Amino acid sequence: MSDAFKLGLAGLGTVGTGVLRLLDDNADLLAARAGRPIEVVAVSARTRGRDRGIDLSGYQWCDDPADLAQVEGLDAVIEVMGGTDGPALDLARASLSAGRSVVTANKAMIATHGFELAQAAEAAGAALLFEAAVCAGTPILQTMRDGLSANRIDRIEGILNGTSNYILSAMERSGEDFGETLAEAQRLGYAEADPALDVDGGDAAHKLAILAALGFGLRPDFAGVEVNGIRDVRAADIAQAERLGYKIRLVAMADLVDRPGEAPALLQRVRPCLLPADHLLAGIDGPTNAVLTLGDQSGPILIQGAGAGSAATASGIVADVVALARGQARAPLAVPAGQLAVAERADSGAREARYYLRFVVADRPGVLAELAAAMRDARVSIQSLIQEGEGVDPEAGGIMVALTTHRAPARNIRDALARLQGSQSIVEPPLSMPILQD
Amino acid sequence: MSDAFKLGLAGLGTVGTGVLRLLDDNADLLAARAGRPIEVVAVSARTRGRDRGIDLSGYQWCDDPADLAQVEGLDAVIEVMGGTDGPALDLARASLSAGRSVVTANKAMIATHGFELAQAAEAAGAALLFEAAVCAGTPILQTMRDGLSANRIDRIEGILNGTSNYILSAMERSGEDFGETLAEAQRLGYAEADPALDVDGGDAAHKLAILAALGFGLRPDFAGVEVNGIRDVRAADIAQAERLGYKIRLVAMADLVDRPGEAPALLQRVRPCLLPADHLLAGIDGPTNAVLTLGDQSGPILIQGAGAGSAATASGIVADVVALARGQARAPLAVPAGQLAVAERADSGAREARYYLRFVVADRPGVLAELAAAMRDARVSIQSLIQEGEGVDPEAGGIMVALTTHRAPARNIRDALARLQGSQSIVEPPLSMPILQD
Repeated sequence: MSDAFKLGLAGLGTVGTGVLRLLDDNADLLAARAGRPIEVVAVSARTRGRDRGIDLSGYQWCDDPADLAQVEGLDAVIEVMGGTDGPALDLARASLSAGRSVVTANKAMIATHGFELAQAAEAAGAALLFEAAVCAGTPILQTMRDGLSANRIDRIEGILNGTSNYILSAMERSGEDFGETLAEAQRLGYAEADPALDVDGGDAAHKLAILAALGFGLRPDFAGVEVNGIRDVRAADIAQAERLGYKIRLVAMADLVDRPGEAPALLQRVRPCLLPADHLLAGIDGPTNAVLTLGDQSGPILIQGAGAGSAATASGIVADVVALARGQARAPLAVPAGQLAVAERADSGAREARYYLRFVVADRPGVLAELAAAMRDARVSIQSLIQEGEGVDPEAGGIMVALTTHRAPARNIRDALARLQGSQSIVEPPLSMPILQD
Repeated sequence: MSDAFKLGLAGLGTVGTGVLRLLDDNADLLAARAGRPIEVVAVSARTRGRDRGIDLSGYQWCDDPADLAQVEGLDAVIEVMGGTDGPALDLARASLSAGRSVVTANKAMIATHGFELAQAAEAAGAALLFEAAVCAGTPILQTMRDGLSANRIDRIEGILNGTSNYILSAMERSGEDFGETLAEAQRLGYAEADPALDVDGGDAAHKLAILAALGFGLRPDFAGVEVNGIRDVRAADIAQAERLGYKIRLVAMADLVDRPGEAPALLQRVRPCLLPADHLLAGIDGPTNAVLTLGDQSGPILIQGAGAGSAATASGIVADVVALARGQARAPLAVPAGQLAVAERADSGAREARYYLRFVVADRPGVLAELAAAMRDARVSIQSLIQEGEGVDPEAGGIMVALTTHRAPARNIRDALARLQGSQSIVEPPLSMPILQD
């Protein structure tokens, strides 16, 4: 058997300790699969003394994580500190420029600096892998980069945030509203104390930007993702959607829009959507992640699994380590960085869909006429309209009107809602969600 | 860009021509991802003259496929002729011993001769890849070999035969019996003229033996798969299962059984099972394939997609070719052949489950007492028993009795059925199916 594959590890939170535990638990099996033992040589974390339930005495300690880049004899550095910039980015840059490969679970860093880091990796002949950055141990990047490498990717759709999906699934079952459900999810450990990155869609947007870059051969464009989170979804919307035969899910979606005479433009969106019951993503329940990739040859490929957790994230990280130890390095973003095109952003207003619109309105005559007129003036054709008798917002005292539209461009929907802005009849901001593929 | 990666192709049926078409359609994208152009240099098929809708004039022609092994300058040979032995095996052996890598979609050959071929590949320093042999373009081998490489695999469950799943799904919808549904499936092209390999479980068993070898680090043991097909499943069973809250699916399943003081033994089975509605495989509908892999770190990972078809199979084959062109070769069965253990076969009789048993019995007093006595004598405890008023078999004139049992070892179920063999009350052979995980 060859020499050990030697690692430095930066970050000793739940993910970092999970990696150490995995490397220990499955050491024999990993050595067999990698063709050589895998060994952590040096570690770094914010505080050295903290009890992590793991014996650190066998590892060289670095106070400054960036020093890992210089520890002698390392083959690769694992970065699980997190953060878009700061120490994580410093370490990645330092390691790559020292010719050391980097394995990271840091979706924010890759979504934002992935192109620069891919260039640095290639320039230094080092590898940069980040399987765990998207859906933790669910090997979707692997699948896109290798398993579907023969395909032109036509569309990527995913449920990429486990917390949001857990909350929407729980609201479905309990009939409770977002606030109570979030509090319960926080109590159970499915949501962070600060849930913004999850429920407002940023986390899913990071993952989508990485998937889109890999799938379409583009530089990651996180800033180009249009994002809406799930805070405004009410239990009443979920109940209404269910009566119409739909589930509500936070869907991340990317595709290329053809433009005559120009390169196709990239459309990347994260927002709550209505999914018909037979949509492959409609059945994804609880804190699960799932990605549906449409290949021109393979047809739709669905891959689903846990999207978070210490062991699952370690699974993704160590899979990358095994690939490196085997000498299976590839271009970080599937094709050489120099060939990654800059994504032109598509106009999302032109994209047509059926829509679900929900209003909370004052209970008085003429309100429906006002809604209908705004739709007509914006050239949105109403398919069905449901006025709920009961009030949905005891404080505001409004009643709920939900409607579905025929296919219309997103800009017409926005126009209709803009026409209603400032109306005395509308008690709170309306919610619009597209109805996917039915 | 480097020199072209040069291929020979044996077999010009729908899959072989699909490969040529894919390599042509996606040539630029493949060259970018592989880092070099991919080029077919020589081809072989049974008849040269046949019109395949493809121009073969640019390829060197070999009457004997084994001659591809000697064509100068080839990097790899693609084998899509099929057949466990014969020309396919001859070509694989000849290519590998000439140091040429082999890519094949031939599940029968790999399930039967995979170990020998893996040894030959390693001895010659060549690669042997067979992604398309299991679930066509759905990259499950890739996922097992690379994406889940950090995991001890605890169990593999799959819906591995699209024809059987299509038929069971269609019976569910139409309420028609197996015979009519098969005929319809044949008419629509979802079933072969000779459907035995599909509906009797052999095809799924080939795929399972390959998955189990990869997942558990064992030599493939196709002969060790216990197989039951779907011919005996009636529409009445599907209706009865549905009333009880279950779907019937042909499930392939492999796991390791711990044995005190000995290496774990391998249990591999393909048979129709009752799946609770929330089982991840219960929702797999139509000609789709799906594999659920339980990793000790990742938790359950589901991957699903088309399991057959010209383009989907070509997608799997060309993904292997891209991996080879990138220099990403690995041990054919994830670990070096010398480390693959010989699978000891587990005793399936010891495995406990709840069971669904269906009898067609004569309509006369005492029959239920006879069934109940056999169950009692075999120490099988009945959970519920449903006697259908109407006859299920107009010819035989019997009536249907379906029962579910409490958990019992498979050998007790077999014992109960053996006790009823030869009984005058039983009009046709009974059907038993396990009820999975609920």
